[in-house]
Amino acid sequence: MMNATVLVPAAGIGRRMGASIHKQYLDLAGRPILAHTLALFDRHPSIDSIYPILPEDDISYCQTQVIDRFHFSKVRRLVAGGPERQDSVLNGLRALQKDGATWKTVVLIHDGVRPLFDATSLPGIVAAAWEHGGCVVGVPVKDTIKFVDQGWISGSPDRQRLWQAQTPQAFRFDLILRAYEEADRARFRGTDDASLVTRLGEPVLMVEGNYRNLKVTTPEDLLIAEALLKERETEQ
Amino acid sequence: MMNATVLVPAAGIGRRMGASIHKQYLDLAGRPILAHTLALFDRHPSIDSIYPILPEDDISYCQTQVIDRFHFSKVRRLVAGGPERQDSVLNGLRALQKDGATWKTVVLIHDGVRPLFDATSLPGIVAAAWEHGGCVVGVPVKDTIKFVDQGWISGSPDRQRLWQAQTPQAFRFDLILRAYEEADRARFRGTDDASLVTRLGEPVLMVEGNYRNLKVTTPEDLLIAEALLKERETEQ
Repeated sequence: MMNATVLVPAAGIGRRMGASIHKQYLDLAGRPILAHTLALFDRHPSIDSIYPILPEDDISYCQTQVIDRFHFSKVRRLVAGGPERQDSVLNGLRALQKDGATWKTVVLIHDGVRPLFDATSLPGIVAAAWEHGGCVVGVPVKDTIKFVDQGWISGSPDRQRLWQAQTPQAFRFDLILRAYEEADRARFRGTDDASLVTRLGEPVLMVEGNYRNLKVTTPEDLLIAEALLKERETEQ
Repeated sequence: MMNATVLVPAAGIGRRMGASIHKQYLDLAGRPILAHTLALFDRHPSIDSIYPILPEDDISYCQTQVIDRFHFSKVRRLVAGGPERQDSVLNGLRALQKDGATWKTVVLIHDGVRPLFDATSLPGIVAAAWEHGGCVVGVPVKDTIKFVDQGWISGSPDRQRLWQAQTPQAFRFDLILRAYEEADRARFRGTDDASLVTRLGEPVLMVEGNYRNLKVTTPEDLLIAEALLKERETEQ
């Protein structure tokens, strides 16, 4: 079985949440959101090591209040993030490089505020990244999407072809490091990890995930996450 | 103040819900979903009349279990729907025509399974439809959207321009009737009401709504709707 390392960017300041603490520490069913997310990987046999990426000021708080408190054993190092997610992930990739990652390493990148990812799909994701170079978890878009220009609807992209990208996004280490370094040199800003890879002309596979894999960025999302988590616990 | 009529298509059979009753009758916090939706309009002063559109077999059930039971006073008539949403709305528009709708009528079209729409925005929506011919409630897309072809990511539409269309969608009666009749003649199938209007080259405005205005189409959506509804009641 192929194993992998996970970068967990959680350096966002959560302006949309309107809370006084960073959104990744907000309480979700009795634990910080980030603790739910890290638990997905910490207890999964496909994962060897975890690198949370945090605002520099948060590192000691996160160490005591999340890593130590919930006894995560695979957290190798807490990495200081940068001003934006892309800077943070690049810092994470450089930390992996220092720790000896090679072309044989598969790296997953997963948002710290996606606590509802279904970890049973991890072996397939790791295998797809190894085989194809890169893959992204996503779902077909259910909504009607419009192009809007200056307030007026100007058309619709073809819905049959539209997918919503989530995380994890998984890549061979050499490919994703090169994609981030080239984007950094070109000052290119992408909306996700895969966009930095596809801009190099490298193929990235879309792997069908689950609509429950919510990114918790607003107070409504937190309510929704609680409802979904409660249901998941009932089912188990 | 400008007033309006509402068509409420609720003729879908709800396959995605996996339930034995049509999704619009599923219980949401003690009432059928459709009763929540109709209540938004029944108690709002901008609305004169409501036309729910239902599967033909459901009409008497809906009359007793929803309309009579919750004492909706603005429901003018229950209209039998067609095989698809677009057929159903066309039936609704023809019912309005029989009942004397003119070019001065503003028609809102609102999904029966969107019980969380914020009705305080109705006066502005009615006014925008009257002024501009048509408008659509929607929200900027937060997600990363990809084009996917045969499983591979082939690019991303420009996120700055992407909006997610919801309902209500509101139009002057003559414009929307013409759009539906021309689509019917051309056997054109759109993904929403506005797409039938914009294909005629007529402008349609996007009006910013709210992320809470969920379309309840899966069991997860029902859970989420319960959580959002509970919160709304706490706030009031």
